Amino acid sequence: MADRIDELAAALSRFPGIGPRQAKRFVYYILSTQQAERTKLADLIRSIASEIKQCPECMRFANFSGPSCLYCTDTSRDDALLMLVEKDQDLASVERAGTYKGRYFVLGGVLTLSGKGAIRERELTRAVGARQKKGLKEIVLALSATSEGETTTDRIKELLLPYRDSLKVSELGRGLSTGSELEYADAETLRSALQNRHET
Amino acid sequence: MADRIDELAAALSRFPGIGPRQAKRFVYYILSTQQAERTKLADLIRSIASEIKQCPECMRFANFSGPSCLYCTDTSRDDALLMLVEKDQDLASVERAGTYKGRYFVLGGVLTLSGKGAIRERELTRAVGARQKKGLKEIVLALSATSEGETTTDRIKELLLPYRDSLKVSELGRGLSTGSELEYADAETLRSALQNRHET
Amino acid sequence: MADRIDELAAALSRFPGIGPRQAKRFVYYILSTQQAERTKLADLIRSIASEIKQCPECMRFANFSGPSCLYCTDTSRDDALLMLVEKDQDLASVERAGTYKGRYFVLGGVLTLSGKGAIRERELTRAVGARQKKGLKEIVLALSATSEGETTTDRIKELLLPYRDSLKVSELGRGLSTGSELEYADAETLRSALQNRHET
Amino acid sequence: MADRIDELAAALSRFPGIGPRQAKRFVYYILSTQQAERTKLADLIRSIASEIKQCPECMRFANFSGPSCLYCTDTSRDDALLMLVEKDQDLASVERAGTYKGRYFVLGGVLTLSGKGAIRERELTRAVGARQKKGLKEIVLALSATSEGETTTDRIKELLLPYRDSLKVSELGRGLSTGSELEYADAETLRSALQNRHET
Repeated sequence: MADRIDELAAALSRFPGIGPRQAKRFVYYILSTQQAERTKLADLIRSIASEIKQCPECMRFANFSGPSCLYCTDTSRDDALLMLVEKDQDLASVERAGTYKGRYFVLGGVLTLSGKGAIRERELTRAVGARQKKGLKEIVLALSATSEGETTTDRIKELLLPYRDSLKVSELGRGLSTGSELEYADAETLRSALQNRHET
Repeated sequence: MADRIDELAAALSRFPGIGPRQAKRFVYYILSTQQAERTKLADLIRSIASEIKQCPECMRFANFSGPSCLYCTDTSRDDALLMLVEKDQDLASVERAGTYKGRYFVLGGVLTLSGKGAIRERELTRAVGARQKKGLKEIVLALSATSEGETTTDRIKELLLPYRDSLKVSELGRGLSTGSELEYADAETLRSALQNRHET
Repeated sequence: MADRIDELAAALSRFPGIGPRQAKRFVYYILSTQQAERTKLADLIRSIASEIKQCPECMRFANFSGPSCLYCTDTSRDDALLMLVEKDQDLASVERAGTYKGRYFVLGGVLTLSGKGAIRERELTRAVGARQKKGLKEIVLALSATSEGETTTDRIKELLLPYRDSLKVSELGRGLSTGSELEYADAETLRSALQNRHET
Repeated sequence: MADRIDELAAALSRFPGIGPRQAKRFVYYILSTQQAERTKLADLIRSIASEIKQCPECMRFANFSGPSCLYCTDTSRDDALLMLVEKDQDLASVERAGTYKGRYFVLGGVLTLSGKGAIRERELTRAVGARQKKGLKEIVLALSATSEGETTTDRIKELLLPYRDSLKVSELGRGLSTGSELEYADAETLRSALQNRHET
């Protein structure tokens, strides 16, 4: 019989990026804490879904009491813009940057070149339709500048074909990101950086 | 008000080696699972200490019903040998190797050159005393070949000074470990590897 | 007496990014080649400066017979633009990208926050003066998006203060560079990426 | 016509571990040095083979005037021992460790599981035969603890089969090498470390 240490390690090894060895380390860490701390962690895990729900409009996880989340209902945000991001953490990055004041939709994944992965296609179509009635003018594809991001962008463009007459579809600008060295920059990055150059 | 996502992320970021970003990723993973899976994980965390106890002899965490764990009570194991290891996972490594059949003691940490860290000194002294009455002949210091391991070994040698007349104290052999390349091997490793060479 | 192996290793360990160990490996590689190959390599190193000169205008190293290099004399290139780059390899990156058709100046280094490093200040001032007589309108600061790049950019802006009435000074655009993931993008990169978004 | 920069970069990119980009960086470094330094480097490369020869006994590269190198002719070294190493740098590591005082033979490579690589088989057989006449008793296989090292060791054992009655063949001892952590040590390393434990 595998004991509880193995059972808990197996559950923790399903956490993203965690192998069996680190899962074991988590178990021994948990065993070394006080019972009160273990109980608190267990309560947080058990009850998180009672307070945090998935917003039916933008699909992000958040704490909200009305039918939709704050970003979807806040009337001071710009209904003309809808940004599509891969996951909740990407949305949080954009919020931290502090300049975007439109609406969001979380795709919930990316597509790979080899045909793996999935995004919320039906929910996206529905959200675009609903947003259009509220004044949507532009969809901003905010995917990562990776091959998965590009594959996903291509699929979304297909999905948005029926809306191309009524909606503008844009992509984030390419350029030097913080830390980029000119010597290693690829041609596309350099061309965009040159084109998007600005007076100092 | 920080919401539950931040609260759970804060709790998970105390797991060893986990920063705030990966803790957030864990939270979104947990949110994405079924309620049944969350409940099971919470129950495992809450109840692990009811089944897994710390053995009062060797200090390891294990599932046992008597006063001490299996490794401490199994009469087929050799009472003449006591191996000192840093942590539960090291003990598990030695068990996997399959040749050691003596007793164990888990130090619960290492000491650093800068004076940080702590080991179970009182428990160690008590365990050595108790083991001596049962026929202990040799203590095997099985610390990692790192500066922390050496500092810890030095401190343990001090603690064991009163027993040096009656007990043999040994250290694990140095040599080429799997993956070691000769070009990068340091002098101590090479000297031990040469001295411990064996006929093929 | 240190022998020739050590002497050659010492010379090769001055190559950028090469430590004593890799330098030794280079020596044994060289020893393992045919005499003809060694002679050819030696001849290339000895004679490279007879064919490759430093252009007195842009300061890059190139093969040219006239007073200045091809990029400085080619009349099809745009005299209105002067791009400042850190080193020859950066210039090569920009050329590979294929869209820039103005002139160049190679700074020959970067400045660090701690006051180290040096750039060709006198040569730069002289080049800007000379280029202005030929129709220069804009200086493009094409430094890496690193702290060294920013420190260098700041110093160059100081140097160019006397020209600010007559010349436009621009910097490369920031944004997502190839490989950037949204989750890890900093606020400045995201703000620029959003601002420089383009219709697809 | 590719110019001299490309030609020299191509030659330097044949150095072990050097790609085209770092080779270019070497070229610009060389261009930035004084002519005297370039000439000295070129002379060292051209002339290294006039002073450094390959010893016909142990096959290492060294500076010696007699028929064989110092390690092969030094009468204070132990003729009973012959250590087989992969390459010159490994021999240098063993010399730095300072305890081995026998003879050497440099295999000049390793064999891989997929059948690649080559070692000096004929020269080895000849060297073992010659050394046997001078009192050889033991051959020490000092290969890295890697899969290549093991494949090479297996092949050498085959080659040495005819000598097994008259010669001892030994391998370097396994154990914890400097930096090894117990938690990550594999079973073979731990078993050897336990077996080779020594009193402190």
